[in-house]
Amino acid sequence: MTFKYSTHLPNTENDTLGAILDAAANPEVISLAGGLPAAELFPVEDFRASANRVFDKQGAAALQYGEAAGLPALRNEVAKNFLKPRQIEGGVKNIAISTGSEQAIEQIAKMFIDEGDTVFVEAPTYLCTVDVFRSFGAKIVTVPMDEDGMRMDALEEALKAHPEVKLIYTIPTFQNPTGRTMPVERRKQFVELAEKYDVPVLEDDPYGAIRYSGEAVPPLKAFDKTGNVIYMSSFSKILAPGFRLGFVVASEDFIVNFTLMKQMADLHSDNFSQYLVADYLKHNDVNKHIEKISALYKHRFELMQSLIESEFPAGVKHSNPEGGMFIWCQVPGDIDTMALFNECAKQGVAFVPGEPFYAGDSESGTMRLNFSNVDDDTIREGMKRLGAAIKKFLDK
Amino acid sequence: MTFKYSTHLPNTENDTLGAILDAAANPEVISLAGGLPAAELFPVEDFRASANRVFDKQGAAALQYGEAAGLPALRNEVAKNFLKPRQIEGGVKNIAISTGSEQAIEQIAKMFIDEGDTVFVEAPTYLCTVDVFRSFGAKIVTVPMDEDGMRMDALEEALKAHPEVKLIYTIPTFQNPTGRTMPVERRKQFVELAEKYDVPVLEDDPYGAIRYSGEAVPPLKAFDKTGNVIYMSSFSKILAPGFRLGFVVASEDFIVNFTLMKQMADLHSDNFSQYLVADYLKHNDVNKHIEKISALYKHRFELMQSLIESEFPAGVKHSNPEGGMFIWCQVPGDIDTMALFNECAKQGVAFVPGEPFYAGDSESGTMRLNFSNVDDDTIREGMKRLGAAIKKFLDK
Repeated sequence: MTFKYSTHLPNTENDTLGAILDAAANPEVISLAGGLPAAELFPVEDFRASANRVFDKQGAAALQYGEAAGLPALRNEVAKNFLKPRQIEGGVKNIAISTGSEQAIEQIAKMFIDEGDTVFVEAPTYLCTVDVFRSFGAKIVTVPMDEDGMRMDALEEALKAHPEVKLIYTIPTFQNPTGRTMPVERRKQFVELAEKYDVPVLEDDPYGAIRYSGEAVPPLKAFDKTGNVIYMSSFSKILAPGFRLGFVVASEDFIVNFTLMKQMADLHSDNFSQYLVADYLKHNDVNKHIEKISALYKHRFELMQSLIESEFPAGVKHSNPEGGMFIWCQVPGDIDTMALFNECAKQGVAFVPGEPFYAGDSESGTMRLNFSNVDDDTIREGMKRLGAAIKKFLDK
Repeated sequence: MTFKYSTHLPNTENDTLGAILDAAANPEVISLAGGLPAAELFPVEDFRASANRVFDKQGAAALQYGEAAGLPALRNEVAKNFLKPRQIEGGVKNIAISTGSEQAIEQIAKMFIDEGDTVFVEAPTYLCTVDVFRSFGAKIVTVPMDEDGMRMDALEEALKAHPEVKLIYTIPTFQNPTGRTMPVERRKQFVELAEKYDVPVLEDDPYGAIRYSGEAVPPLKAFDKTGNVIYMSSFSKILAPGFRLGFVVASEDFIVNFTLMKQMADLHSDNFSQYLVADYLKHNDVNKHIEKISALYKHRFELMQSLIESEFPAGVKHSNPEGGMFIWCQVPGDIDTMALFNECAKQGVAFVPGEPFYAGDSESGTMRLNFSNVDDDTIREGMKRLGAAIKKFLDK
């Protein structure tokens, strides 16, 4: 039969991203398009030790159904390891475990968005969030950024123009795709605006712990006194994405409602993996592990940055992230980024063109480069090919 | 702040089920209200062996991001172990892994239901499905059952009255909550009606493998030549629910679209657990394990059934399941089932009253009893208390 689907289904007729990922998957192409953490740093043996402890003492419980809000032991470890150090107030009742950040985004979208509702996102932003918001029929308003993240003058203008807005989505630290970080003063302004206009803010912070230079900046949630900020983070970048575990931190009232929604989505997150990660956090110093990740990413970032200077034609601008996994570049002139992508793929190198990260009009010549999951030789060869392809494209 | 939520949020003002679960959680109350598999049969040591093999050879891959449709090795094992033996045609491309059955239900609901769309469910049915359908604004039409499951005359009547129907949801084998199973002839009729009226059927089959008497009946999907039936099953009842792993079997076209939706829900299911379960299925005879579960449940079912005969007042009707985890009882007369529940809770025993399982009008005096996760002494004492409480209630 031919199914008659709902309006929630994505429009796949113009699948730019699919074409990009297909090109990047060609084994002869060096891919700087990914968004994967470095697998060689996954603490496999520590997890084996945790698995054995869980099987020894909690095997049956870990394999049984669990609590919708998440394993209490894991929520305790989250409070201890990730709330206090990030200057976020709150305890176990303010925390729910999600099946990765993606589930938190989808369920929070479902909680706020009815068909036709307005939401704000940064331009550019994490493309899967835009897909999720669209799947619930959201009208998406983009707020422009500068090197310091979302512009507060533009946000206030948008808030005045759209008093009906239901939610503001932001990645203030080591943003995907730009790598940019919002400074402290602007964060305070952001929280004040959210309070003044009575709008919830969804703060997505998957990368914030992975800082390799500069001073730590507290999340927006640290400045939130009124409960407007819903904070979410994840174990995917600091431990391992395979477990699909993330967490949401918000007012108790919000957590109760989030838990009701999450229960409809998958009853609860993988219980066995929650036991594993809770045990890992109890028996290991996760900050030492994060330091290892940061050191490796710092090295890869600096290598890629130096190759932008030496291999790319003059005039290519790039962001200067102090953490995270991405550099954002912009090739000068009014160029067709997809044509540039195709030229680069021909030269055996792939990246993610800027276009899919924009919910509205995109900025010409933008691209996202990933350095977290590529070794030195691959970075060198990839950047050489990329530099040559950009030069050839600009010379045309 | 006070959040302004969407219409997707459940109405919790009249939380019958919450009150029931609270009463059942009282440690002095014997709970026959659960729906949990017997934890003492979880193959903990086999999973430990699998975990060690996965850590040895595939540690980094299992901890990394995976494929949205599911781990190919696991989908292969599903095809081998669960499609052919259930007489379902199809291969890996017809299979997607879901984060438990619950996710399949939510994402398929999202795929078909726009605000105001009509769906059919059995009366009574799995209550979480009704919650999910309602969260997308579905108009729910109930189709009555008899001892052989959904009535086909009633279904055809509903199809004629509601040509706009988007989806029919059914649990044809060892149904939750009734334990009833639809015979082969009626299954064929069901599939013919779905084809004739061009409506997709969501066949939910979490319990079908756990049969302890009678002849095996193929799922509806085995009779489906036109792709109308979307089949779903789960590892929760035959291996362990903690992993939150299930699978959907349908036409390739449907699986592509399901995968797009699932990707927005959590990117993919827990990769590590998928490696574990794939390895378990490769190295163990899952059918032998299912035989152990069936033998234990047969014993517990027969004990509970004999106690219905000896402890309950005459006139209490009950279903005669040939598998699964539940017996459905009906106390005679026009009685208030919640009042009966409260009387029983006072006597120290809990069940799930029928009411929440009905999307429309409920049948008086109905209750669901679970026997899968209670030992003999608990069943004996619980049924004694239940019988006494029902007698006392009826004598009032």
